[in-house]
Amino acid sequence: MEFDFSDRMKGLKANAIREIFKYLSDPQMISFAGGMPNKEALPVEILSELSEKLFKDKSIYGVLQYGSTEGYMPLRQSSVDFVKRMGIDGIDTDNTLIITGGQQGIDLTCKVFLNKGDCILVEDPTYIAVLHILKTYEAKAYGVKSNHDGIDTDDLEAKIKKYKPKFIYLVPTFGNPTGKNYPLSKRKKILELAVKYGTIILEDDSYSHLRFGGEYVQSIKSLDTTGNVIYNTSYSKIISPGIRCGVCVADKEIIAKMILCKQATDVHTSALSQALCDGFLRGNYLDGHLKKILPIYSSKKSLMREAIKKYMPTDFECTNPDGGLFIFGSFKEGTDTSDYFVRALQSKVAYVNGIDFYASGDVRNTLRLNFSNSTDEQIERGIKILGDIFKER
Amino acid sequence: MEFDFSDRMKGLKANAIREIFKYLSDPQMISFAGGMPNKEALPVEILSELSEKLFKDKSIYGVLQYGSTEGYMPLRQSSVDFVKRMGIDGIDTDNTLIITGGQQGIDLTCKVFLNKGDCILVEDPTYIAVLHILKTYEAKAYGVKSNHDGIDTDDLEAKIKKYKPKFIYLVPTFGNPTGKNYPLSKRKKILELAVKYGTIILEDDSYSHLRFGGEYVQSIKSLDTTGNVIYNTSYSKIISPGIRCGVCVADKEIIAKMILCKQATDVHTSALSQALCDGFLRGNYLDGHLKKILPIYSSKKSLMREAIKKYMPTDFECTNPDGGLFIFGSFKEGTDTSDYFVRALQSKVAYVNGIDFYASGDVRNTLRLNFSNSTDEQIERGIKILGDIFKER
Repeated sequence: MEFDFSDRMKGLKANAIREIFKYLSDPQMISFAGGMPNKEALPVEILSELSEKLFKDKSIYGVLQYGSTEGYMPLRQSSVDFVKRMGIDGIDTDNTLIITGGQQGIDLTCKVFLNKGDCILVEDPTYIAVLHILKTYEAKAYGVKSNHDGIDTDDLEAKIKKYKPKFIYLVPTFGNPTGKNYPLSKRKKILELAVKYGTIILEDDSYSHLRFGGEYVQSIKSLDTTGNVIYNTSYSKIISPGIRCGVCVADKEIIAKMILCKQATDVHTSALSQALCDGFLRGNYLDGHLKKILPIYSSKKSLMREAIKKYMPTDFECTNPDGGLFIFGSFKEGTDTSDYFVRALQSKVAYVNGIDFYASGDVRNTLRLNFSNSTDEQIERGIKILGDIFKER
Repeated sequence: MEFDFSDRMKGLKANAIREIFKYLSDPQMISFAGGMPNKEALPVEILSELSEKLFKDKSIYGVLQYGSTEGYMPLRQSSVDFVKRMGIDGIDTDNTLIITGGQQGIDLTCKVFLNKGDCILVEDPTYIAVLHILKTYEAKAYGVKSNHDGIDTDDLEAKIKKYKPKFIYLVPTFGNPTGKNYPLSKRKKILELAVKYGTIILEDDSYSHLRFGGEYVQSIKSLDTTGNVIYNTSYSKIISPGIRCGVCVADKEIIAKMILCKQATDVHTSALSQALCDGFLRGNYLDGHLKKILPIYSSKKSLMREAIKKYMPTDFECTNPDGGLFIFGSFKEGTDTSDYFVRALQSKVAYVNGIDFYASGDVRNTLRLNFSNSTDEQIERGIKILGDIFKER
């Protein structure tokens, strides 16, 4: 039969990164595309032990049974402690909602705030998924200019006035895709603007623990005394993305609304995943695990930077992030990275075209490279292949 | 600050069953409210073994890593075999999408098909969650009359013509809340109407394996040659609800759209949950497990029926289902079960008011009783308490 799909499906295409995923099953492929943790950075031993212990404990019956939408109470409690690391204090479990990965926090924020035709502001470029999610709400994102240290607050203020956004979506710490880390002064200014204009900030923070250089900067949420900030974080990058678990912290009124919406989607996040994350946090495995994985990421970033210097054309400029998983680079104007994408895939190297990260503007000369997932040898070889391709322009 | 929530949040209240959940943490409470499997019916030993094996296998790296939105391929494959039990044949993995519990299948169907103001048809009474989910899409459900053997097909045809629904939501096998099992002739008639009027059927089937009496009836999807039927099932009731895993089977075009929407919500279902469900299915544990749990459920249903006979007022009439988890009952007109609800909770017994299951009509004299979750002693004692309360009308 002919299907009469909803309006939101018109023009909804697969998120570019998820599309590239399909090619990654090819074992020959060197992927600089996804944001996958390194295989060595997956705490298999710890999770194996935690799982074995859990299945022997009588709490397993509660874990395998239906749970509450808000989340597994032990994990809500340990999440309250966890976010103190980002300076977030003075909250209780009613300020938390356990989510099925950080992305669900974005989806629920959209569901709770956006009507069809509403708009939000994002830094340009921004996390690709937020642009995809917005389409499912028939809402629009406007891009705000970005400087070397993050979103341009003058442009932000001008666009808040112009567009009256429902919220401002930001990844202030090692932002995806650029890896920028906003200084404290900028974070304060952004919050000041949000309060002044009565706007929500959705602070998405999946990367702040993956800091291998620079100074710690507290989260925008930690500065929030008015309830303007929704703070969204994930256990994907520090424990495991495959188990889909994160936490959202916000004003209790917002959390209560999000719970109503989550009830209507997946009822609750896998309680097995929640119990494992809780065991990981309570067992104080995090610091030891970070101590193990951060040198790996730091070394891989440096290696990729060196390979870029060695192999990429001289007009290629790229970021040098102190954390996160990505290097973002650009060629001189006139180069369209998507023209070389298929050739790169044929040569068994995947990257993400920068254009997909932009809400506004037609910026075609950028690309994002993930350095965390590949072996050292793959980084060297993959960048050499890309260098050869782009040198032939 | 004052929050400017989206229109869909207006009047969105907690689903009655999820609200009752909060009271269930009281260990004294006898709950006939949720649809929870019995503790003894949770395959803890099997899952424990599967989990231990999985963590020792090299496939664990893939499980803990980001996976594809479509689902963990081994589970998509074993799900193709699984649905053959309900007569669904001739499909391949592209007809399947792994979902974070059966409820996500309803949510994704709504997302793919419904615009604000659209409507669907449901049997009256119907599964409470579908009414809640609909509100998040600002869509409306119209109730169709129900007979002793399921939805009234004359009323269904009349209402298809009148309302032009985007889809018809049905739980044809041991439907929640009434436990009715539609005969094959009715299933054929419903499909015929859907094809005639170009309507989608969302066949929600979480209970067909929980059959302890009567005859097997094949699913509506098994009769579908035109792609009109979306078939939604869950591993919650036969493996574990806490791990949130189910499968949706539909025309490839619909599945492709659902994948786009799922990308924008939780990226993918916990791969750990998926791998455990796959292990359970491939290990051929299902038949043995059903052999163990069905006599428990059958005996509990009989026990509850006997207790009802013994303790409930004589005007209370109830169903005698051959499967599923619920008995649905009604008092004579004039009794409003919600008037007695708080008193029952105070007396430490929880049930669900029938009114919450109705899309149309003001039916106040019904209630739903779950028989699977309580101990035998609790069933006897709980029904006695309810009997005492309702006898005082």
